[in-house]
Amino acid sequence: MKRLIYDARLKSVPEPTLRRLPIYHRYIKELKKDHWTFVSCTDIGEEFKLEPTQVRKDLEVTGIVGKPRVGYPIAALIAAIEEFLGFNNVNEAFLVGAGSMGAALIGYDKFQDYGLNIVAAFDNDAAKIGKIVHGKTILAIHKMPDMARKMHILIGIITVPGSAAQEVADLMIQGGICAIWNFAPVRLRVSDNIIVHNEDLYCSLASLSQKVAQAIRLRAEEMPS
Amino acid sequence: MKRLIYDARLKSVPEPTLRRLPIYHRYIKELKKDHWTFVSCTDIGEEFKLEPTQVRKDLEVTGIVGKPRVGYPIAALIAAIEEFLGFNNVNEAFLVGAGSMGAALIGYDKFQDYGLNIVAAFDNDAAKIGKIVHGKTILAIHKMPDMARKMHILIGIITVPGSAAQEVADLMIQGGICAIWNFAPVRLRVSDNIIVHNEDLYCSLASLSQKVAQAIRLRAEEMPS
Repeated sequence: MKRLIYDARLKSVPEPTLRRLPIYHRYIKELKKDHWTFVSCTDIGEEFKLEPTQVRKDLEVTGIVGKPRVGYPIAALIAAIEEFLGFNNVNEAFLVGAGSMGAALIGYDKFQDYGLNIVAAFDNDAAKIGKIVHGKTILAIHKMPDMARKMHILIGIITVPGSAAQEVADLMIQGGICAIWNFAPVRLRVSDNIIVHNEDLYCSLASLSQKVAQAIRLRAEEMPS
Repeated sequence: MKRLIYDARLKSVPEPTLRRLPIYHRYIKELKKDHWTFVSCTDIGEEFKLEPTQVRKDLEVTGIVGKPRVGYPIAALIAAIEEFLGFNNVNEAFLVGAGSMGAALIGYDKFQDYGLNIVAAFDNDAAKIGKIVHGKTILAIHKMPDMARKMHILIGIITVPGSAAQEVADLMIQGGICAIWNFAPVRLRVSDNIIVHNEDLYCSLASLSQKVAQAIRLRAEEMPS
């Protein structure tokens, strides 16, 4: 069986670059709709308030090379980003935890465009097992590791409560899954060859709350006394 | 009416620090449960594979000062982080878009601990208006700006499809909302005094897909031919 090995070399692409590329991609697709044929780093930089050199460095990781003073042919640039980001190799994924967040993710209709196809969803709640959510039947969790192994599933999505997340991650890894998209608010303890991508809405909210709190504080300081 | 002004000085706290603080906070609360009374930057650094000096810099933004060779008293450190992140000033928020992601967020039970209380949810779909989701009645969107103004709501959460997000943001700003947590996969065009916090799952997935694609590529290269 083909087994995926996570490798330290993967870390050579900076995370901010990885986060900006899909945003550029969406913008460049809009330009293509508007019949642009070339786009430059300056165009992209202006749109996102970034230095053109930063944009160039980001795009370079895809292997594409622009022409001086002209930029990139739009269609080739879109293709290069999609190839680099893996949009063309749709990976099948299992989701565990068919609560409201799990159901919301099952309902996202465009994940396939971004390289992800949620092929099955699992839960341990007898009341949920057998129910159909956005066209997918919820299966019993105990079937997951075997099915993952048989179907060569690489990606697992965890949308269970924090207290159950580690156990689910362990089951996924047992089933051969090597990349986990974790929506539970806990850090998973896994070996270094497993890719974990945390989507912790509480942490994200904390960062928003801080900005609001600080804005309120500044405002109070500025109020005439 | 007290009007919140977003200020360039807010940007002085680096985003990575803002994202790490709630993670430290959760870990330190676990230590407190285990009856620790002091924690050092080295302890925290070891847990998260970070340099102690980085941890110290992160914690400094809260105003707390540790004791050499002893660290921080746990209770005071927790309080300092919570104060800094605004967990103590729970802000009321409106949510617009009662689809499956909106419903999932309404159902998150611990947002209050992180400074957020979703007090009302809105939609423009007659089939959803009047329905009760996790205890909240869905209201008609046209009521939102007036209600926001009357209730001095500061935070708006957008969980509508991308095509409707800009219009919803404009309505929120009309209603005096000045911080937007945006789950729609579009960049909102707002003036500089509005805080926008994007939660774009497609972009996040793109970053995960890339790691998986690259791991597969590396693996293929390493296969004996």
